Amino acid sequence: MRLTLAEPKYLKDSVSIISELVNEATFKITPNAIELVAMDPANVAMVMFKLLSSCFTEYDVKDNVELAINLNNLKQILRRAKPDDMLSLELEENKLVLQFKSKTTRTFSLPIIELDEKEQKIPDLKFNAVIKAPASLLNEAVEDVDIVAESLTLEAESGKLNVVAEGDLSKAKIEIKASDEITINVAGSAKVRSKYSVEYLKKMVDGSKLADEVHIHFSDDYPLKLEYKSVDKVLLAFILAPRVEND
Amino acid sequence: MRLTLAEPKYLKDSVSIISELVNEATFKITPNAIELVAMDPANVAMVMFKLLSSCFTEYDVKDNVELAINLNNLKQILRRAKPDDMLSLELEENKLVLQFKSKTTRTFSLPIIELDEKEQKIPDLKFNAVIKAPASLLNEAVEDVDIVAESLTLEAESGKLNVVAEGDLSKAKIEIKASDEITINVAGSAKVRSKYSVEYLKKMVDGSKLADEVHIHFSDDYPLKLEYKSVDKVLLAFILAPRVEND
Amino acid sequence: MRLTLAEPKYLKDSVSIISELVNEATFKITPNAIELVAMDPANVAMVMFKLLSSCFTEYDVKDNVELAINLNNLKQILRRAKPDDMLSLELEENKLVLQFKSKTTRTFSLPIIELDEKEQKIPDLKFNAVIKAPASLLNEAVEDVDIVAESLTLEAESGKLNVVAEGDLSKAKIEIKASDEITINVAGSAKVRSKYSVEYLKKMVDGSKLADEVHIHFSDDYPLKLEYKSVDKVLLAFILAPRVEND
Repeated sequence: MRLTLAEPKYLKDSVSIISELVNEATFKITPNAIELVAMDPANVAMVMFKLLSSCFTEYDVKDNVELAINLNNLKQILRRAKPDDMLSLELEENKLVLQFKSKTTRTFSLPIIELDEKEQKIPDLKFNAVIKAPASLLNEAVEDVDIVAESLTLEAESGKLNVVAEGDLSKAKIEIKASDEITINVAGSAKVRSKYSVEYLKKMVDGSKLADEVHIHFSDDYPLKLEYKSVDKVLLAFILAPRVEND
Repeated sequence: MRLTLAEPKYLKDSVSIISELVNEATFKITPNAIELVAMDPANVAMVMFKLLSSCFTEYDVKDNVELAINLNNLKQILRRAKPDDMLSLELEENKLVLQFKSKTTRTFSLPIIELDEKEQKIPDLKFNAVIKAPASLLNEAVEDVDIVAESLTLEAESGKLNVVAEGDLSKAKIEIKASDEITINVAGSAKVRSKYSVEYLKKMVDGSKLADEVHIHFSDDYPLKLEYKSVDKVLLAFILAPRVEND
Repeated sequence: MRLTLAEPKYLKDSVSIISELVNEATFKITPNAIELVAMDPANVAMVMFKLLSSCFTEYDVKDNVELAINLNNLKQILRRAKPDDMLSLELEENKLVLQFKSKTTRTFSLPIIELDEKEQKIPDLKFNAVIKAPASLLNEAVEDVDIVAESLTLEAESGKLNVVAEGDLSKAKIEIKASDEITINVAGSAKVRSKYSVEYLKKMVDGSKLADEVHIHFSDDYPLKLEYKSVDKVLLAFILAPRVEND
């Protein structure tokens, strides 16, 4: 296996975001993509990552490879990538070898670990509310509500999305309307409502580093799915369990 | 009551500065202005704030309203204002409601609190030294002396102002002369001297965010008054008790 | 003695770097230069500093003066220098007096201390590997290896320099080749290898603030010498003891 990236940014930013949720995880390297599906240690959030082979200048993978890695260690190494570095990845015995090439050649190797986990299955979810919006809008809303409470409620009806939070003292409400940039589709005529952890959302909305748009999916008291994608390059998605109303 | 600000900056910056000195305070909203007069918990400093109605695009106040608020909570909400937000303030039952409008509408409400304080009277002070200077000059002087001591002495005579500090080891002296930008008037021919806390001054000189000039008033071993104003818009002033010479 | 600097930067940056290694030290002021030679408290590193008289707009020194100073206090004062300040240094009784002049005149004085140290002799060292490289290259290499280990090994042979580090888990290797910008000379045909503390190196490579190039000298299991110089202005050099292989 040998992979070369001319723009290390997509891998670097993705690993940095994922490592906030998951400490250790298994990458699956197939002839088409590098993929990762992992649960956070508290079993509240799932992260799904796919970096497509079309993103690479060299992508030589014959058989599927599974590669368990400490994501924090990997993040620290990827942080050393400079914009003009070519990054190549190889396997060598029990090590993942990362090479950064510009004027100098810098080689890092980090151990492949044993990870005793069963394969994560992506749950089959059906969503009643489907929203497409500029990614920054969700980042702002999450930061807004963060000052009043630890959880927020998403409320959608056709053409409208509210982000609502109520703390012991203060309240916040962000009203978002469908527009040229914002699509808000709700199945049926009812209002859809569900509540989620602000702490988790703050980590997930960093997906905005990878894509200008976020796709938001949820249903009544049901998991939330956030998707950040850059066509032919990268997909980073999250599933977050709802908080039950009496949390 | 309904007030709308096209530039939330003056309210935002003022509340941020005041909250460094005072935790909770009562705003008085009159047909002409939003006002606040408060003492810091140690009774060493007084802050006076006035945001004129001419600063607002909508200013609908029939009767005087008194509004006690936790300034830290208010500061956190005002921080969320973006430059292109229209900010409106309203009362709703026991809540102050702040609405930020740009592409989205974001509404925050925070509780009006009970504040058991007698009304603060602004003391009637007469000053022998009156100085007008670029605000940044005082900020620099306070930062300069901060590295050698916890208190500084202001010494003025006609046309000259010295800021002096003496620590256990090191000393600092900033000499400022009257110029096109700097006016230094001293009543009589004597030298005027007084000593003040650097810690308090560091908080007060942040008034430079609101105005390019500072007006400095003091007398021998007497309170100091600092004034930052932007004509027809905002006034932020501070009175600081002197330190007696054997502090 | 009276010295005036139009650009306080060289003194300011040097003192800031030296103070990371040494708390108190003796400056020797001769008719030609301000000099300092000091060991760090752990006796692992030596720092040598020379600020030439040609750097000053006024340099009035008749006899040699020795001046022991707390470098941290001096650093804090020098930090207050603004780019357009003229900085003059004078001795007054038992004080070093620093005056910053621009629109205002700001005077700081700090005590000359008693320092009971024997004069530091710069050891007479002979190096087999002599390298000249852009200073930033060494900064990057030290930051690279910092994420995997606490010590690094320099390995040079003619035309090639490797910076290698091996932690409990991960490894890093930076390969540098001679080029237009990089000269790598090694005496004889053998490979030269030696190991040094990353923590100390991180402090030393800040010399890159003073010069665009670094001169690196070492031999097998032998001290390292780093030199940063700006012709006719300033020299900042460091000697660092090697780590023995079984550290």
